[in-house]
Amino acid sequence: MTDLTRTDAVRRHDPAVRGFASDNYAGVHPEVLAAIALANGGHQIAYGEDDYTAHLQDVFRRHFGETAEAYPVFNGTGANVVALQSLLPRWGAVVCAESAHIHVDEGGAPEKMGGIKLLTVPTPDGKLTPELLDQQAWGFGDEHRAQPLAVSITQSTELGTLYTADEIRAITEHAHQLGMLVHVDGSRLANAAASLGQPLRAFTADVGVDVLSFGGTKNGLLFGEVVVVLNPEGVRNIKYLRKTSMQLASKMRFVSVQFEALLSGDLYLRNAGHANAMAGRLEAAVRKIDGVEVVRPAQANAVFAILPREVSERLQKRYRFYFWNEHTGEVRWMCAFDTTEADIDAFAEAIAEEMGRA
Amino acid sequence: MTDLTRTDAVRRHDPAVRGFASDNYAGVHPEVLAAIALANGGHQIAYGEDDYTAHLQDVFRRHFGETAEAYPVFNGTGANVVALQSLLPRWGAVVCAESAHIHVDEGGAPEKMGGIKLLTVPTPDGKLTPELLDQQAWGFGDEHRAQPLAVSITQSTELGTLYTADEIRAITEHAHQLGMLVHVDGSRLANAAASLGQPLRAFTADVGVDVLSFGGTKNGLLFGEVVVVLNPEGVRNIKYLRKTSMQLASKMRFVSVQFEALLSGDLYLRNAGHANAMAGRLEAAVRKIDGVEVVRPAQANAVFAILPREVSERLQKRYRFYFWNEHTGEVRWMCAFDTTEADIDAFAEAIAEEMGRA
Amino acid sequence: MTDLTRTDAVRRHDPAVRGFASDNYAGVHPEVLAAIALANGGHQIAYGEDDYTAHLQDVFRRHFGETAEAYPVFNGTGANVVALQSLLPRWGAVVCAESAHIHVDEGGAPEKMGGIKLLTVPTPDGKLTPELLDQQAWGFGDEHRAQPLAVSITQSTELGTLYTADEIRAITEHAHQLGMLVHVDGSRLANAAASLGQPLRAFTADVGVDVLSFGGTKNGLLFGEVVVVLNPEGVRNIKYLRKTSMQLASKMRFVSVQFEALLSGDLYLRNAGHANAMAGRLEAAVRKIDGVEVVRPAQANAVFAILPREVSERLQKRYRFYFWNEHTGEVRWMCAFDTTEADIDAFAEAIAEEMGRA
Amino acid sequence: MTDLTRTDAVRRHDPAVRGFASDNYAGVHPEVLAAIALANGGHQIAYGEDDYTAHLQDVFRRHFGETAEAYPVFNGTGANVVALQSLLPRWGAVVCAESAHIHVDEGGAPEKMGGIKLLTVPTPDGKLTPELLDQQAWGFGDEHRAQPLAVSITQSTELGTLYTADEIRAITEHAHQLGMLVHVDGSRLANAAASLGQPLRAFTADVGVDVLSFGGTKNGLLFGEVVVVLNPEGVRNIKYLRKTSMQLASKMRFVSVQFEALLSGDLYLRNAGHANAMAGRLEAAVRKIDGVEVVRPAQANAVFAILPREVSERLQKRYRFYFWNEHTGEVRWMCAFDTTEADIDAFAEAIAEEMGRA
Repeated sequence: MTDLTRTDAVRRHDPAVRGFASDNYAGVHPEVLAAIALANGGHQIAYGEDDYTAHLQDVFRRHFGETAEAYPVFNGTGANVVALQSLLPRWGAVVCAESAHIHVDEGGAPEKMGGIKLLTVPTPDGKLTPELLDQQAWGFGDEHRAQPLAVSITQSTELGTLYTADEIRAITEHAHQLGMLVHVDGSRLANAAASLGQPLRAFTADVGVDVLSFGGTKNGLLFGEVVVVLNPEGVRNIKYLRKTSMQLASKMRFVSVQFEALLSGDLYLRNAGHANAMAGRLEAAVRKIDGVEVVRPAQANAVFAILPREVSERLQKRYRFYFWNEHTGEVRWMCAFDTTEADIDAFAEAIAEEMGRA
Repeated sequence: MTDLTRTDAVRRHDPAVRGFASDNYAGVHPEVLAAIALANGGHQIAYGEDDYTAHLQDVFRRHFGETAEAYPVFNGTGANVVALQSLLPRWGAVVCAESAHIHVDEGGAPEKMGGIKLLTVPTPDGKLTPELLDQQAWGFGDEHRAQPLAVSITQSTELGTLYTADEIRAITEHAHQLGMLVHVDGSRLANAAASLGQPLRAFTADVGVDVLSFGGTKNGLLFGEVVVVLNPEGVRNIKYLRKTSMQLASKMRFVSVQFEALLSGDLYLRNAGHANAMAGRLEAAVRKIDGVEVVRPAQANAVFAILPREVSERLQKRYRFYFWNEHTGEVRWMCAFDTTEADIDAFAEAIAEEMGRA
Repeated sequence: MTDLTRTDAVRRHDPAVRGFASDNYAGVHPEVLAAIALANGGHQIAYGEDDYTAHLQDVFRRHFGETAEAYPVFNGTGANVVALQSLLPRWGAVVCAESAHIHVDEGGAPEKMGGIKLLTVPTPDGKLTPELLDQQAWGFGDEHRAQPLAVSITQSTELGTLYTADEIRAITEHAHQLGMLVHVDGSRLANAAASLGQPLRAFTADVGVDVLSFGGTKNGLLFGEVVVVLNPEGVRNIKYLRKTSMQLASKMRFVSVQFEALLSGDLYLRNAGHANAMAGRLEAAVRKIDGVEVVRPAQANAVFAILPREVSERLQKRYRFYFWNEHTGEVRWMCAFDTTEADIDAFAEAIAEEMGRA
Repeated sequence: MTDLTRTDAVRRHDPAVRGFASDNYAGVHPEVLAAIALANGGHQIAYGEDDYTAHLQDVFRRHFGETAEAYPVFNGTGANVVALQSLLPRWGAVVCAESAHIHVDEGGAPEKMGGIKLLTVPTPDGKLTPELLDQQAWGFGDEHRAQPLAVSITQSTELGTLYTADEIRAITEHAHQLGMLVHVDGSRLANAAASLGQPLRAFTADVGVDVLSFGGTKNGLLFGEVVVVLNPEGVRNIKYLRKTSMQLASKMRFVSVQFEALLSGDLYLRNAGHANAMAGRLEAAVRKIDGVEVVRPAQANAVFAILPREVSERLQKRYRFYFWNEHTGEVRWMCAFDTTEADIDAFAEAIAEEMGRA
């Protein structure tokens, strides 16, 4: 019908330029684009009754166990708000770390769209513990207190740290004893798997997590996350919540096939493992530079460092990255699936140069 | 880094099979996929500060006038709920046709996510008029009545009909006199442009529409809609509403470049015009078949018909399509950008065959 | 401590003046004020753990059966929104008459505060039937449709009509078969009991109603309604919903003791029966006046009539009442517990006078 | 019509028993009951168009200045949620102290009913400062962060402390410079006036507060609070918010006349000043008891103290009061308008006795 290669769109950027601002700045892995092309053509039932979404159930069951159910959605905030609503009655609240994405980076969507109160806990490293959970997990049965019936943790965390499987198990066991359900914001769950060297289920389904936001966008997809129900007894009716939360994709085959590309083979590990390795390479390099303080060990694909503000500001003219904490001058350097060793080496050299001019 | 063509995903469907169930069943136009590939590679700022989204502003201003602002979102329900929130205070209500997508097909998202009351009006053909609007546009200043401060119309309508520019102008003028703002659900706005033979702005910006949900998914995109602000004096702060409504895409360049592919040249008209023509061809063919009643003229890409229920049920074993009204037996046949003349002819022949067996 | 009779407040109205605008215009029955004084003095636990609220459970169980639970709230809109939330998941919808108070007179509170979609049905007399219910009770299991999981009916209705117990049973049986729960907006339930000559439970608990908004304000209380759970298996957690919906009174003893005054003896029937009788007297009187059309039989405490608009407008200068329908000129005349026979006779005479001048 | 003194209700408590649990445990001041009786009888327009509510505007203007507008509501949570909604767009957030009533005692109503995110700040004494405000007042213009467009402070605070007028002015000036509006939760504002020896406006309207929740229930009313708009330029449309938030009383004359009784003369000061004096007497008495630590100075009507847990538990068998902090053993002793000197002396003696048995 038409010339398959023609398009009126124009390339408007230099595909050789990469920075350290965010794994969301990266594009799409070629295998993922190829998968989308595979799923194209002809008609497939809309809104999730297509063959790709059906198959995706098998893929997720393989990774997360026989009871897993996969509900593709558009984005991470959507996945989180859908998942949290599924855990809570109208009067429920969620305990989370003060640094949780749902608290600081979702524009109030949990409260505004889900009516969900967040009860936050300060943490040194973005990780909750049973003891920290107890700071907010009280007042059960008292209607004056929004009932803390769920806990949400992030793996890997917004601060670049990791929970071990045992640490997550300690939280789920404590939460379940209190009558709470457990959500994992796993927008970077693959990075955790790569870093821990464990299967995805080892630190989710196998240690009692009830529902999971499984990330794709930050790991090489065009777009797409999956709400994964691990405990179908406790977590029901995601399909209604997804629709009413405006997260039901009509041409869902194209979300599902991307996750098939990611998870059928080892692409999720190749991408995440590579990003982690680049962060490790960067951490090692900057630890050698006098005056740069690595704030937390880089357990996933982020390096957090403190260096003189004017150095950071000069560096930002050469490479994109963000200040994490305006007060302390802490910066965040993220690596992505497409970050290269050469990128790291050049960036580390630039840091050293600018430090030398400090 | 990797083999660009390898993917672990598998083709799971026959790309030669097409039906008449929905324009959402179709896939992605090749020019759109090519555009996505163009925008891939390297890093681009996330969340809409990329070069493609910047350029998209020009594209939309060219189509909708110098004041137009384009806010890409994920899907149609998201576009509508974001747009309607922008028109309403917390106590506002929207007048719409009883057949409006926002009322019957969005799982209650306007009410649940936006807190928006819908005041519906029965219509014969899915189209409001100033007179029909008056059925619900009253009680201004009375706090006991959710204040009807916006009206939402659909172009082309859910019933396959079209508003003329003058008809829309009559509604916007009446609404504005009443102090109401006007939203157009344009998930099939391109079909209207193709059918009316008018530029997009002729029946939107030029006749007083305040905000628009501009559809891409049903017209050959992978996914994506755009909230288009036409009256920036009356419609503000979409950026906050988009985020808090979970409709802010991180890798937005890939939404924007699809719309660039659609709207830079004439792809939007080619796709929509073709779908319309196929509906016209189908309408013409079935009008010749005794016992098939075409319910409404096919002004866009849908044909609505009544035929014996058992005939429809036999037909559904050969081609996918939906009953529109279970009580009357009315069915809907949608054409898409990829429907072929051969598809139409074969389907019309199948209808004739099954009618012959009635 | 202080002079018990002194107050700095001043009487600002003529207590001899009464109209026909609303049973909300009336004040407080003296026995109710006396009950409030009884409950005053000393300390009682706040927020519903007082002795009066404890006793109120017995009172309601006596009227509604052994499983009844009574949750006092502030007002009718609050009672309705709390009750409806208890029946619905986040994606639920309520089927109701187009004339229902929840749809037309609550400022959108069900949608805005409860996120509840209302699916309305036109009715001739404000009463649903199983057949009318079916107009909206469909699409179960389809996430594109807000799930119609509850039905709300009003007894006596906003149009002054009554359901018989059998009519309500027909609705509850049909609804329950469909998996729906049933709410009764009983802001004038006592008027129904007085008119039907049946105990309150005969047309609520005994015929399958799940939850009830039981009205007090319109029947002689200072303020107060009660959410009555009749089916504790299906309706849970009102206590949390009441608090989060801002309907938990701190000095609840004063709400509860008013209902004790109303329901311990026969005050609810005396008040409501009197108001009904006054409406009947008015209906009888105006039926004799040429040119006044009584629109619906006055089965409770309201008379709806059509008469020439200019007559109504002249009458409104002498007595307060409302137009019910601006288009048809229909007016509503409400009687209250304090309406006297002399009031009725004088008003009927005024109507006759003004009609004579038409 | 009926015997004015008869009621079927029964006195169920001992009016001589008072405790130290809450000022909500107290009943109604006799002058307030007398005022309600004054306003009774005859008909008055419902929903706030009555003569008492009209006059109340004068009363509030006298106390708060010529631009003040008074909107009576049912309860404190309702007043706060209505007021905060008036300050915020749909994407707005409120900065408040971690100990704020809106955060810890309203069952999540701000989030669930208003969709409002709360950004909390730990404080030593329940009081914000400009510096503490800055901990959360940032990220303006960034849609990823719920926009902190309002601040809410409590006067007197939940911890029994007071802001001076200058301290409030410092907050409002700083907030206004940041583009934020200021709400005061004044459920105990009269206690502040009595303690500061200043008119109500001196530390509200005169120092830049935009909207106020003015408390009545805790200061001797049957029920009722008032949302007071002090800055009508910045705070609009309370009437719609009040209705849609289920806080519009039908028989509003009875809310309004109570506030007239409170504020026309000096009853608000007599009640609050007395409660404050009783707290002062208690504080003085317990400071003399070895082993009882007064945690914060009793600036209003509450005393916070730490004493051995087993002593508190024995005391609770004699007098009602609450633990404030289960971890530290801190208890709260509230005085009310009806607390007597004899009550205080007996309670202090009981404390001393139980301490002696420690």
